[in-house]
Amino acid sequence: MSTMRAVQVVGYHQDLEMKEVPVPEVTGAFDVVVKIGGAGVCRTDLHILEGQWAEKSNVALPYTIGHENAGWVHAVGSEVTNVKEGDKVIVHPLITCGLCRACRSGDDVHCESNQFPGIDTNGGYAEYLRTSARSVVRIDDSLEPKDVAALADAGLTAYHAAAKAARRLTPRDRVVVIGAGGLGHIGIQVLKALTPAEIIVVDRNPDALKLALSIGADHGVVGDGNQVQEVLELTGGHGAEVVVDFVGEGGATAEGVAMLRRAGDYHVVGYGENINVPTIDIVSTEINFIGNLVGSYNDLQSLMVLAARGHVKLHTQTYALDDFQKAITDLDAGNVRGRAILVP
Amino acid sequence: MSTMRAVQVVGYHQDLEMKEVPVPEVTGAFDVVVKIGGAGVCRTDLHILEGQWAEKSNVALPYTIGHENAGWVHAVGSEVTNVKEGDKVIVHPLITCGLCRACRSGDDVHCESNQFPGIDTNGGYAEYLRTSARSVVRIDDSLEPKDVAALADAGLTAYHAAAKAARRLTPRDRVVVIGAGGLGHIGIQVLKALTPAEIIVVDRNPDALKLALSIGADHGVVGDGNQVQEVLELTGGHGAEVVVDFVGEGGATAEGVAMLRRAGDYHVVGYGENINVPTIDIVSTEINFIGNLVGSYNDLQSLMVLAARGHVKLHTQTYALDDFQKAITDLDAGNVRGRAILVP
Amino acid sequence: MSTMRAVQVVGYHQDLEMKEVPVPEVTGAFDVVVKIGGAGVCRTDLHILEGQWAEKSNVALPYTIGHENAGWVHAVGSEVTNVKEGDKVIVHPLITCGLCRACRSGDDVHCESNQFPGIDTNGGYAEYLRTSARSVVRIDDSLEPKDVAALADAGLTAYHAAAKAARRLTPRDRVVVIGAGGLGHIGIQVLKALTPAEIIVVDRNPDALKLALSIGADHGVVGDGNQVQEVLELTGGHGAEVVVDFVGEGGATAEGVAMLRRAGDYHVVGYGENINVPTIDIVSTEINFIGNLVGSYNDLQSLMVLAARGHVKLHTQTYALDDFQKAITDLDAGNVRGRAILVP
Amino acid sequence: MSTMRAVQVVGYHQDLEMKEVPVPEVTGAFDVVVKIGGAGVCRTDLHILEGQWAEKSNVALPYTIGHENAGWVHAVGSEVTNVKEGDKVIVHPLITCGLCRACRSGDDVHCESNQFPGIDTNGGYAEYLRTSARSVVRIDDSLEPKDVAALADAGLTAYHAAAKAARRLTPRDRVVVIGAGGLGHIGIQVLKALTPAEIIVVDRNPDALKLALSIGADHGVVGDGNQVQEVLELTGGHGAEVVVDFVGEGGATAEGVAMLRRAGDYHVVGYGENINVPTIDIVSTEINFIGNLVGSYNDLQSLMVLAARGHVKLHTQTYALDDFQKAITDLDAGNVRGRAILVP
Repeated sequence: MSTMRAVQVVGYHQDLEMKEVPVPEVTGAFDVVVKIGGAGVCRTDLHILEGQWAEKSNVALPYTIGHENAGWVHAVGSEVTNVKEGDKVIVHPLITCGLCRACRSGDDVHCESNQFPGIDTNGGYAEYLRTSARSVVRIDDSLEPKDVAALADAGLTAYHAAAKAARRLTPRDRVVVIGAGGLGHIGIQVLKALTPAEIIVVDRNPDALKLALSIGADHGVVGDGNQVQEVLELTGGHGAEVVVDFVGEGGATAEGVAMLRRAGDYHVVGYGENINVPTIDIVSTEINFIGNLVGSYNDLQSLMVLAARGHVKLHTQTYALDDFQKAITDLDAGNVRGRAILVP
Repeated sequence: MSTMRAVQVVGYHQDLEMKEVPVPEVTGAFDVVVKIGGAGVCRTDLHILEGQWAEKSNVALPYTIGHENAGWVHAVGSEVTNVKEGDKVIVHPLITCGLCRACRSGDDVHCESNQFPGIDTNGGYAEYLRTSARSVVRIDDSLEPKDVAALADAGLTAYHAAAKAARRLTPRDRVVVIGAGGLGHIGIQVLKALTPAEIIVVDRNPDALKLALSIGADHGVVGDGNQVQEVLELTGGHGAEVVVDFVGEGGATAEGVAMLRRAGDYHVVGYGENINVPTIDIVSTEINFIGNLVGSYNDLQSLMVLAARGHVKLHTQTYALDDFQKAITDLDAGNVRGRAILVP
Repeated sequence: MSTMRAVQVVGYHQDLEMKEVPVPEVTGAFDVVVKIGGAGVCRTDLHILEGQWAEKSNVALPYTIGHENAGWVHAVGSEVTNVKEGDKVIVHPLITCGLCRACRSGDDVHCESNQFPGIDTNGGYAEYLRTSARSVVRIDDSLEPKDVAALADAGLTAYHAAAKAARRLTPRDRVVVIGAGGLGHIGIQVLKALTPAEIIVVDRNPDALKLALSIGADHGVVGDGNQVQEVLELTGGHGAEVVVDFVGEGGATAEGVAMLRRAGDYHVVGYGENINVPTIDIVSTEINFIGNLVGSYNDLQSLMVLAARGHVKLHTQTYALDDFQKAITDLDAGNVRGRAILVP
Repeated sequence: MSTMRAVQVVGYHQDLEMKEVPVPEVTGAFDVVVKIGGAGVCRTDLHILEGQWAEKSNVALPYTIGHENAGWVHAVGSEVTNVKEGDKVIVHPLITCGLCRACRSGDDVHCESNQFPGIDTNGGYAEYLRTSARSVVRIDDSLEPKDVAALADAGLTAYHAAAKAARRLTPRDRVVVIGAGGLGHIGIQVLKALTPAEIIVVDRNPDALKLALSIGADHGVVGDGNQVQEVLELTGGHGAEVVVDFVGEGGATAEGVAMLRRAGDYHVVGYGENINVPTIDIVSTEINFIGNLVGSYNDLQSLMVLAARGHVKLHTQTYALDDFQKAITDLDAGNVRGRAILVP
């Protein structure tokens, strides 16, 4: 049995450790083993180390962390027909069953018996990862695994919310994006590609707004206390037809609701605080709150088309796999511009 | 100028008074004057007298109360083509402009310059009411104004929520109705007519559940503290795809959310308390909260078709217009079975 | 290797023959072998024998015919989790890949690499059938395989068309069903369960209309040459919002289009003649023609729920498997009331 | 009573004539009189003179021709609230009632009692035009009536079809546009603004293809007899998810259907020949034919937003109103580049 390097969680409130572990092998008919080309380092990884996911995931330690993965197909199970050895792929974060009602409806993120590599089973801070034929999306020749890896989860979540929001948007509508950070700046690019609506971006950081305007936002509003008023002015006093909230904390939701037009949709993506709104207000303005989880396999296929055309771009900062601790430390200290990517 | 009897609000925290006032006349090209055949007495009317609407409606006293009206067309403006004198009609609660974007999209309840007779202008506790050609729906020969008047607002709200909820419901789905009272028992009848989904009704009152089962509910669950558990058992442990909450107070929303399946829709209709849910829960289960106001003109047309076919029935208790005080007192005391209707 | 009886096509324009063949075995991880409880005898089977499908299916003779199957799970592949030995199931007519875009979108009938047992591989006029975990739907305890087998294809097609048609139907709308025969009488029951619209059925056969009225149709119109005029009278001179055409030959489509309202949907289900309509008419009335193939796996799940509740019933006439020739002869001679079912 | 110049149809197969006629006046409460800034000269106007519309419109001669109009509000009826004197507007081609079901549903082009100025009542080859408050859309300060007039009908039809087509298009889809002429080149711009799908344009004219590529098409295919094959190659052998056919004659529909993927939508916009397709093909591939008439009032609002942003541009060639005959002659001779516009 051959072995590989893998970065593992060995205990909560402890540093990750590099280990020599067996290369994962194909055991099921639909298994796919991917040679990792890039693995995104995500804030969720910090939360895992803090133990926030321990109870929820119930994972046995040690295990390999990393849930934003891309690379090349290394081996396939006996009934895999959609990819072959050598194919360049991005990996959908979930392994899904394919048989439950959700899976049969294209809504695979609600699969009744899914696995989540990097969270509840071995992930991609390693040389190889085992996933399923149902989770791999071939990417265009022009794309490199390390450049798109972080689209597998953070980017996919932003795509999913933006695409759902876009369904009702017409040229006459406005959409407010709250937060132009990691997810938000992908969401803005997706909205630009999918909808003719006017895009208004709210962020406290003037640099983030500058970036937002350069990638498709029509208006930038500084979150300096006057943002609700400014959005109302930009929307004829009515508010926007849709708000997509990538923040979800620090008072964002109350402000966001105040920016929403009658009969509008409030997309919840970021999280932290509560949605806390009187039912009388929900009824009298007839507004909706729309939850958004990570995107489906189909969403990831669509996002990879946008990436191949250059409509969605991501800033990345690469680290050798051996430098995993530096990547983690940089992220924790706020020293990563864009997304940190480990390259084995 | 001829006069008529009209029941008016003469002051807040005061009894209504019968007055002799001028019969309303056609002044605009689209005006319609309706001879009242029945006017529903609604809990909102009690709230008006308590002054709860004073600031919101900004209505000048005295004015005629009553927002659930039906009768016969008495006079029409010069450009009215959809009804003529003598037509039997139910009256949509709002007078809408017909020119704003909402009106042009069939979404007239969000009209940017609407009037609300009985709330902010003269209503239907009277012999005649002035409304608009855009607000009158002809009713079937088999229906009588006094029998359908209360469908104009309470029934229309229930129809609107049930019809929106029904759009995603298939034979495999379950819908939980919270509250089988005034609105709820209309909502159940509408759901039965519009969707093949299984209908589960939750109410504290065993008599209300008995009624619910007799008009189409598949299961009745007593709201005795164990209702969440019972709904989960009836839904394979997953919860229902849709919850329609006609209560919205007393803890109903927290319980209702606990009855909701992943990716489910929570329809807010009743009001009182806050929707207060962690964004992390909204995101991780990807649930939606859907606001519901009163129905559109098109909804009222559809509801009248269901009423004409006997699919939606309403219990009523009629009072002569002169007995308005008794109707109000009975309602306040909980002594009205079904809906109280004033008949001039 | 154990053997079983199977009725096979041994040559075109020849009678079917009973053969002793190996019992199919599980070879793939998702394979499911079903012990047949009932196999529907369908007009398509007659067409197969006439050689009409020879070129299209390219199947090697001899092979086992029969594409409407239900029974009990006999054996499952190593990765099957949705059914287990002994489960009572109906079999979706297609074996689909689960990996192509159509399969990933819940639209499995457009699977890019499907198999069709009974048409292009061994079917169900036999004691056992091999299919896939993706094709078996568990049925309610109250249902028997021989009673529902014919819902697997004919019934599923009717469900699919009726369910698509129902999506736009409101209480104010009318739907015309052309043809109350094998598919049509299922379609009527499904429409009744799924939509509040008025159902108008057109058929040349007064007995078929009598049946139609007894299972939910609101109006029956005899196809005696005056049917277009009668439908126009029943629809205020406008025509119906939706026509579902289960005939598709003998002039049905031209008549059906004449029964359609402006902006209406014409659902093509039956086939034989051409849709042949001037583009100027399609444009000036803005009508749509909607194709309908057999239903998806999800549709079959929904149809089985309706069957379990007694909302969809099928007349059947059972034959022992050994009497296959009599069933074929009876069908060809028009002597089957409802659907002929072979029971091994 | 003041008079104005107006170009009138005085007889079929006769030249148009300039007449001095009364300026139209406000008579109804919702009337709006527009001072014409530009009136599009359309191929339909040639057909009117040839008598092709005589029976259909039943208009009494003489009357003023011209159905693509824009200008400034000159006078308004007593109940008009959405525009005021001096407003710059484009005129929706239909005057609609506002009260029928179609009007109440935002689907005003199917109004049950509409008028069509320029076709069945006086149109816009004149100094003034009478229309309705329901038909005027204010345009952005940056737009001039003479530049947008031709968007009122031809452009609006293209917008409507493109917007309907766009609803199902995702980044993974392809849409084929047949015909990059008058309507087609607007349709391409609208598709570019509304959808991320790949746009393939088919036209016989290489110059039209060059223009198409410059305004957003991803691929141009010369209609030289090999176009079906080329589209199949561009779509992985499957055909496109959507075809929008702006030609509808000369064999375009048969070729277009051959370019369509399984479960695809064929949008009929141009007309001339018949849709003539075997029902067996419609059923077995499950394709749809979607009719497209001119756009709604809401569509025109959306199109004006795209025009104001520069997303939709139109080539025009202006003529003084007095030069109406030259405009007609140029159009008939194929000597107009873009659209001919009369400016009073």
